[in-house]
Amino acid sequence: MNEDSEPGTVRPGGRTARVRASVLRAAGDVLAERGFAHLDLADVARRAGVGKTTVYRRWGAVAGLVADLLAEMVEESVPHAETGSLLNDLKANANLVRRTLCDPRQGALFKAVIAAATYDERTAQALRRFYDARVTEWAPCVTQAIDRGEVPAGTDPCEVIRAVSAPLYYRLLTIGEPPDETAAERAARAAAAGARAGVYVR
Amino acid sequence: MNEDSEPGTVRPGGRTARVRASVLRAAGDVLAERGFAHLDLADVARRAGVGKTTVYRRWGAVAGLVADLLAEMVEESVPHAETGSLLNDLKANANLVRRTLCDPRQGALFKAVIAAATYDERTAQALRRFYDARVTEWAPCVTQAIDRGEVPAGTDPCEVIRAVSAPLYYRLLTIGEPPDETAAERAARAAAAGARAGVYVR
Repeated sequence: MNEDSEPGTVRPGGRTARVRASVLRAAGDVLAERGFAHLDLADVARRAGVGKTTVYRRWGAVAGLVADLLAEMVEESVPHAETGSLLNDLKANANLVRRTLCDPRQGALFKAVIAAATYDERTAQALRRFYDARVTEWAPCVTQAIDRGEVPAGTDPCEVIRAVSAPLYYRLLTIGEPPDETAAERAARAAAAGARAGVYVR
Repeated sequence: MNEDSEPGTVRPGGRTARVRASVLRAAGDVLAERGFAHLDLADVARRAGVGKTTVYRRWGAVAGLVADLLAEMVEESVPHAETGSLLNDLKANANLVRRTLCDPRQGALFKAVIAAATYDERTAQALRRFYDARVTEWAPCVTQAIDRGEVPAGTDPCEVIRAVSAPLYYRLLTIGEPPDETAAERAARAAAAGARAGVYVR
């Protein structure tokens, strides 16, 4: 019995992990190059040099593949900053988001996945889980700022972290411009100013 | 010679205007019900009760139809508020955006068009023109706040207006939640707080 038939058994560096890495790399390539509409499991298997049956058995459908792609991004996500200042922590977060959206591969991937999430419910759920994980990872920056007395008690940490991302995604999706360093700096400063002014108190 | 052969001649209430209204209504229905991928000129013509040739001649392709749909929304757009206070003007703007995104037809239409803009350049251009027009219409709220001394001189009026929309679109596109009144109020207060703190000074 090989590891392939036991999806629960993922040893780092083992065959299962290697297959997953190749398939997700191929899926990311197709998404970034051609978009969600052209994502096809047989094509991904061929590019990854993996049997079609393995891909169908493990991921089932395109939505399962996208969900796993986002899960992998969560695993690889950068841990939250702890600079001792809310503004600097939020700048680190804004720059992480900026780098993701400006990366030719990851930026294209996010545009494709967000577009697909507007009409595909399983992709929408996977996207929500990705953002929930990101926001939860960075929320302590705000909790610590509350403890330091930088922002009012009762501030919703998740809303502050989402406020940093919002203008950067908005720029990419509506104006088509990947955010630059000025935009990232401004997003962090705006979220910090709003938090200090008590805008995000529940 | 009927008005149909003179695209420049648009009399309100005339046949040209009526044809355009029917076709755009049908196109909006298809987009909202089935998404951009299913938008088909022949289907739109049939639903609108208009000859296929008329639709092809006037709009040429799906992208032309979407561009005109957005142009119509600009024509029907609500003029900017003038309440005498930046916060109240921005709240009016946030509620306009909220109503658009929560409207079952317009919200679905925007999701479909934003998704299409991620891979179709003509749709992306039409979308940019729509936002440019909206932002330009509402920018005087900020210019007047600068004149009243509410926010620092040098504040970029367009960036403040975009800051109101950003969290509302972000919520819809990434979490899949149409923004509620709390989100609209918060978006307006955050943009006003950022503007007062000088975040949007060029």
